[in-house]
Amino acid sequence: MSNNTIPYKIYLEENEMPTQWYNVRADMKKKPAPLLNPGTGKPCTAEELSHVFCDELVKQELNETDRFIAIPDEILNFYKMYRPSPLVRAYCLEKKLGTPAKIYYKFEGNNTSGSHKLNSAIAQAYYAKKQGLKGVTTETGAGQWGTALSMACSYLDLDCQVYMVKVSYEQKPFRREVMRTYGAKVTPSPSMTTEVGRKILSEFPETGGSLGCAISEAVEAATTQEGYRYVLGSVLSQVLLHQSVIGMEAKIAMDKYGIKPDVIIGCAGGGSNLGGLISPFMGEKLRGEADYRFIAVEPASCPSFTRGTYAYDFCDTGKVCPLQKMYTLGSGFMPSPNHAGGLRYHGMSAILSELYDQGLMEARSVEQTSVFEAAQQFARVEGILPAPESSHAIRAAIDEALRCKETGEEKTILFGLTGTGYFDMYAYAAYNDGTMSDYIPTDEEIAASIAKLPKVNG
Amino acid sequence: MSNNTIPYKIYLEENEMPTQWYNVRADMKKKPAPLLNPGTGKPCTAEELSHVFCDELVKQELNETDRFIAIPDEILNFYKMYRPSPLVRAYCLEKKLGTPAKIYYKFEGNNTSGSHKLNSAIAQAYYAKKQGLKGVTTETGAGQWGTALSMACSYLDLDCQVYMVKVSYEQKPFRREVMRTYGAKVTPSPSMTTEVGRKILSEFPETGGSLGCAISEAVEAATTQEGYRYVLGSVLSQVLLHQSVIGMEAKIAMDKYGIKPDVIIGCAGGGSNLGGLISPFMGEKLRGEADYRFIAVEPASCPSFTRGTYAYDFCDTGKVCPLQKMYTLGSGFMPSPNHAGGLRYHGMSAILSELYDQGLMEARSVEQTSVFEAAQQFARVEGILPAPESSHAIRAAIDEALRCKETGEEKTILFGLTGTGYFDMYAYAAYNDGTMSDYIPTDEEIAASIAKLPKVNG
Repeated sequence: MSNNTIPYKIYLEENEMPTQWYNVRADMKKKPAPLLNPGTGKPCTAEELSHVFCDELVKQELNETDRFIAIPDEILNFYKMYRPSPLVRAYCLEKKLGTPAKIYYKFEGNNTSGSHKLNSAIAQAYYAKKQGLKGVTTETGAGQWGTALSMACSYLDLDCQVYMVKVSYEQKPFRREVMRTYGAKVTPSPSMTTEVGRKILSEFPETGGSLGCAISEAVEAATTQEGYRYVLGSVLSQVLLHQSVIGMEAKIAMDKYGIKPDVIIGCAGGGSNLGGLISPFMGEKLRGEADYRFIAVEPASCPSFTRGTYAYDFCDTGKVCPLQKMYTLGSGFMPSPNHAGGLRYHGMSAILSELYDQGLMEARSVEQTSVFEAAQQFARVEGILPAPESSHAIRAAIDEALRCKETGEEKTILFGLTGTGYFDMYAYAAYNDGTMSDYIPTDEEIAASIAKLPKVNG
Repeated sequence: MSNNTIPYKIYLEENEMPTQWYNVRADMKKKPAPLLNPGTGKPCTAEELSHVFCDELVKQELNETDRFIAIPDEILNFYKMYRPSPLVRAYCLEKKLGTPAKIYYKFEGNNTSGSHKLNSAIAQAYYAKKQGLKGVTTETGAGQWGTALSMACSYLDLDCQVYMVKVSYEQKPFRREVMRTYGAKVTPSPSMTTEVGRKILSEFPETGGSLGCAISEAVEAATTQEGYRYVLGSVLSQVLLHQSVIGMEAKIAMDKYGIKPDVIIGCAGGGSNLGGLISPFMGEKLRGEADYRFIAVEPASCPSFTRGTYAYDFCDTGKVCPLQKMYTLGSGFMPSPNHAGGLRYHGMSAILSELYDQGLMEARSVEQTSVFEAAQQFARVEGILPAPESSHAIRAAIDEALRCKETGEEKTILFGLTGTGYFDMYAYAAYNDGTMSDYIPTDEEIAASIAKLPKVNG
């Protein structure tokens, strides 16, 4: 088919949906560095990891060789409830910008969790159920991941315990109520239900909590209750594997209509959405079959790729998880209160870090107010109110399209629209009121945080 | 195709989307009673109506003869941004209920306004723009309609002034911020910007406002500013016309797969969603080509069909709009604070009222807590958190499916899922906390309100 017949939205038929996840590590000549045991400094064994994670997920985490992994039927059926997600041609945005570029976005927001997180939540919950576990524990900040996991566990009749950062639990009650509606047990963190929580509360009784503390509580809850494991919504290689369904669908839809993207753009916090979107395209690039530009977009307030360093670091501020080699600002880095909560992470996926280090991917950082400007522009012409996180990708896509307007190039741009901003209206209110500010950490702040990286880096 | 190949979600191709609205009045032998001028008691003329409404919309309001009205290309293009909406086979709900019934729902929530309201908002905004107007005014309670209108006006670069009931403006800031993000001017009502607002504020300076007051302010703003008209999101026949796109799409999708519904269910507040969904099926019934059961579901706290009377009444509590013959509880009826704000309306569409009066449609009322029970059951298996309004239809659909389970009948049920509940989490919180209560008005309350109907009824 020619480009003239491209509809506004391309929905695959159910029988065109991918039935396998794609494992980009299989096509990487130089693999990501292994996870290290923080005690011994040696690579984590499957046995060590299985105390915290489900057995099948440990296998997926360590699998660097199988290019494709079959998606179990039960997960495929769940996917059919909200997938395929539409690949949208942004005709209205193109017209508004007056650009010769062709802009496409893969929209992951049409489900109640409001984001792509559900793609991995159902997979992790499924393997926990299959292992005969009673339930899973996790942490959540703003609540996207907790919501997705609650939905998946509810569907599979699995217990779901979510430690939610106390300040979010109190100030953002809406996602908390979505989780409760799906039957999850939501505990404000720090809490009296864990040893680490009690310790923190005795020292800082007035604390509003932190993601690091919530992770520590969730891991303790998983390892001290019979039949529970801990699950995580980003960063890990298993999560990128599950999220490859985004890129697989996008590629099938584009191939069907004879569209080849020149540049592929995604926002990057822990890297799960970006990694999932680019995976099959990156595979072609790694195998020398095609070439694409890939752009990771991160907030200027938390610039792991663009101003971090590539080294081993803790994945959590509580320092209970394995060490991972990644682009990091240091696990003690405290990002400013950027409204894109999902991008306030000090580190980055090991897979994406390695690809970036090999020069296979670009990265740029953008400031918050310019992100919301792009979000509003997009919302007004495309009819979707985007999440602040997703809007980082919109900013970069608009910038690329405007560059094409200057040069006259008819480039094809694909970006990931990871979710909707319906639970982020306080951030939009700040933008509407003109009270939103930008914050860029100083070189000294970043250097001080990086100076405290673990000794294993030598 | 056989029923065995029905996918989870049926999306029409763009070239299968309807290009005309269907005007059910053309197939009604006995037409709805005409709108009356409250001053003269005589039928409103087009000239009278054109002071408040756009010319083309006045024509549509009065058009009882044209069976089809072409959808303008600009509206069709806007529809393509978020339509076709999916027709979903509720496989997971059927399995959970253990029913032999086949359940389908037409889901209108996949757009930022979160409901079907956008279908008419874009039409009304388009005709205002085409008439060369500067802008439109409207009122909004919880904010669904205001949000939809803001999106439509933003797309067409038309000024949008929304009078939002003050208590909602202050207590539910999220939809207000969505409207502002789309560039609408949102004013808490009562306000100092209108004569009627100033009058109410001087008498009741502490009032939280009411829908009736907001309507009065919006109408005053429309009629006192050059180049403005007033628009309304439900009740009117023109709105049912625009909403027929829901039923047209549903019918095309069902015909494509050889599915014939036995019973069609929708929630009913002002009637726009229900009227839109059932229109083309009702047309077949009116022409004697097919038979269907239709069920209107309303809240027990505001039971216009099931406990109201069929008479002329004011459409608004401010008594500034024309009189309409409809099922009504009296324009002074004060519904209890039911969480389904969109169904707290004292009257009903004139078209649906006439069809109900002719015995062509059934109605039932359901209590709030049983509605949220159905909503939660649905959310957990179908993955969509429904709006409280929509959940009235879910309640009735589940009840019908459970009846089929008892009798063994393999009936096909279609219901309208009008929207999502993302901005209704306070209501879900009340349900989760067990603090939600039911309220059923007494016969005396209803009789007292109906006793005050306008004298024109004789």
